[in-house]
Amino acid sequence: MPDVKAAAPNLLTGVKVLDFTQFEAGTSCTQVLAWLGADVVKVENPNGGDPGRRTGSTKPHKDDPYFLNYNSNKRSITVNVKSPRGLQVIKDLAKKADIFLENFAPGAIERLGLGYNVLSEINPGIIYGQVKGFGEGSPYENNLAFDMIAQACGGVMSITGERDGRPAKPGATLGDSGTGMLMCISILAALHKRKETGKGVHLQVAMQDAMLHYIRNSFGLTIKTGKPAPRAGAKNLEGTNPPCNIYPCAPGGPNDYVYVYTSRGNPEHWPRLLKAIGREDLIGDPRFETQAARLENEVELDRIITEFTSKRDKYECMRVIGAAVPSGAVRDTLEILDDVNFQERAIIQKIEHPHHGTFKMAGWPVRFNGNPPAVKRAPLLGEHSAEALKDWLGMSDQQVAALRDDKII
Amino acid sequence: MPDVKAAAPNLLTGVKVLDFTQFEAGTSCTQVLAWLGADVVKVENPNGGDPGRRTGSTKPHKDDPYFLNYNSNKRSITVNVKSPRGLQVIKDLAKKADIFLENFAPGAIERLGLGYNVLSEINPGIIYGQVKGFGEGSPYENNLAFDMIAQACGGVMSITGERDGRPAKPGATLGDSGTGMLMCISILAALHKRKETGKGVHLQVAMQDAMLHYIRNSFGLTIKTGKPAPRAGAKNLEGTNPPCNIYPCAPGGPNDYVYVYTSRGNPEHWPRLLKAIGREDLIGDPRFETQAARLENEVELDRIITEFTSKRDKYECMRVIGAAVPSGAVRDTLEILDDVNFQERAIIQKIEHPHHGTFKMAGWPVRFNGNPPAVKRAPLLGEHSAEALKDWLGMSDQQVAALRDDKII
Repeated sequence: MPDVKAAAPNLLTGVKVLDFTQFEAGTSCTQVLAWLGADVVKVENPNGGDPGRRTGSTKPHKDDPYFLNYNSNKRSITVNVKSPRGLQVIKDLAKKADIFLENFAPGAIERLGLGYNVLSEINPGIIYGQVKGFGEGSPYENNLAFDMIAQACGGVMSITGERDGRPAKPGATLGDSGTGMLMCISILAALHKRKETGKGVHLQVAMQDAMLHYIRNSFGLTIKTGKPAPRAGAKNLEGTNPPCNIYPCAPGGPNDYVYVYTSRGNPEHWPRLLKAIGREDLIGDPRFETQAARLENEVELDRIITEFTSKRDKYECMRVIGAAVPSGAVRDTLEILDDVNFQERAIIQKIEHPHHGTFKMAGWPVRFNGNPPAVKRAPLLGEHSAEALKDWLGMSDQQVAALRDDKII
Repeated sequence: MPDVKAAAPNLLTGVKVLDFTQFEAGTSCTQVLAWLGADVVKVENPNGGDPGRRTGSTKPHKDDPYFLNYNSNKRSITVNVKSPRGLQVIKDLAKKADIFLENFAPGAIERLGLGYNVLSEINPGIIYGQVKGFGEGSPYENNLAFDMIAQACGGVMSITGERDGRPAKPGATLGDSGTGMLMCISILAALHKRKETGKGVHLQVAMQDAMLHYIRNSFGLTIKTGKPAPRAGAKNLEGTNPPCNIYPCAPGGPNDYVYVYTSRGNPEHWPRLLKAIGREDLIGDPRFETQAARLENEVELDRIITEFTSKRDKYECMRVIGAAVPSGAVRDTLEILDDVNFQERAIIQKIEHPHHGTFKMAGWPVRFNGNPPAVKRAPLLGEHSAEALKDWLGMSDQQVAALRDDKII
């Protein structure tokens, strides 16, 4: 076990992000920039702030875990952007910002008077990003979207679920965080270019469009077959390469399964699997010798593997089978949150939050010279209004107090 | 419709990437760097190259669509890295590279003599990335993994599928491309830092760990309930906010469904939906007035919505309902590939490939000043061996010919 310590990676130190994001598609992007060291100032309306603070929350005045998970390491300021003085504060901040990001409903940021044309005039070096549900020029460009709408329209749901069942929505919020990551990459590439040119850029991504990026294997299949890619349950895409499936384990709970995969690219996998489950007697059996034969005799093959897995728990199955061929226990979210190994490796970190006490959350999973970025708790609403206005704009205590008295911040 | 034209964004012009990736988790990352303008030189073994070239391919000597989808805009060189002269060529290339990425099985790159310690000594500025199935320090750190194993062990499958059914694997290859995107962000942030320090960095990400990044809402739910997050079919997470589901449309095919969502954050959504489906008579009906009431009367609510949707096709439903509340047709991969609007917006681009003729593929969905990056076809095996060795190392025709004669390249 290497000595892993969460640490500030300071890769983006000095990069200023003016963050007009809410919910997840935008917030997931700016949170990554914050994790990597940028100074992310999240602008919220004084009247409740990001609606994500209250999404699914059972108690008023308590920030929901949802909000904590997408806004750590940021600073929060509240500004009434509908007042002329508030709007001017934002323009002053935009002058100092390297990056601006928003994911409001179509047309909203422009109606506020903070569109790309306005901010790029104030600051020609600004990298200005927008996340929408549908792309400009799409027949649905004015429609609202949420994660599930993007996953429906972007093809993801059509290939998720049981073969003969209805489409299912992946539990992963690909429409939101999946899109946010593509925007984040684009912002960082633009930042690289800007060092040379000094010029900013207008970045736009649509959640529907971003979904295509994550289902390219299915497009490859459609090109070969001329047909829509099917749903395949727990199997892989075509489902024509058994074993490539989940198998039930003891004691039979809803997530007591183990994935077992033998690669068609490696003919050694099948005999290795047979050895692992104590069925060397079947090595060379023509019913299972080739991929085609295994497909034909899939029912019997599944029975043989299940005979082994159903008598053991999923971790034992993973230990034994995973040493021979690719294999993995189906783990649930409680098992993962409680797994001390994730915490030892700082993949899950504990933070202290005034509303929640000790709170466990997944941080950035990439290690920099051995250490993943340290997570700092999400800000309370307006927690850094004074501090950030002083830092970015050099305001005095009096100036901040005047804005507060007039309910601008 | 804005005038959209795919164009080289040239954001990473001059950035050299030495690419030892294969299959998808690594290749998806370096392809993005190539789309954004980096010079990505993919090193392949002369004996067949990246096994992804042949994955699922029906015909030998024909690169599979799978390969085309993850290796466009790159150059390919073949090098026998197991020969001392081949290894030296790689080290010479590494001296010139800004970025190195590999996703071989655990320990393989180190056994080749190209581990981080070796390459960072040759080139202290190198940004050296590794993608593995499991993290260093995990009990499974030496295990092989593929996309589905990561999705099983990383919690994604446990929250995907029907409520009372088995876990399902999302059709999206989150374990692969989802991980590749996190590595890509980390590489670009490291590149930013390096301009200041000149120093490289060792980046590591595990596919299992990366999955946690995409299911953070479920962890939030688990923290609130103390229980594993459930599967929810097509619904959203808790499934306690109807309507938030898919509804069947005419003519009843496997993907003839429309998603209908009313946000709990916006009490206007429900009456707006009723108007859209011509059921103003139900506005104010106490059976559906609150979220709690709608949950209690979900069966009747579903019947009412289905009465509307089942008589219309999914696009008509999306048009009518989507103008009122978030809504989206469940689209399949053939519909998307054939949708001219995606091509007009250059979200899907057509390329010419010697093995496939005209080939449609999803490019990078983010627009830079209105234009997404232009896709160039994936290289044939070793297509750029001479060209890249001349560019990066200044080799002469004779030097290249000598390497070729000796079967080093």
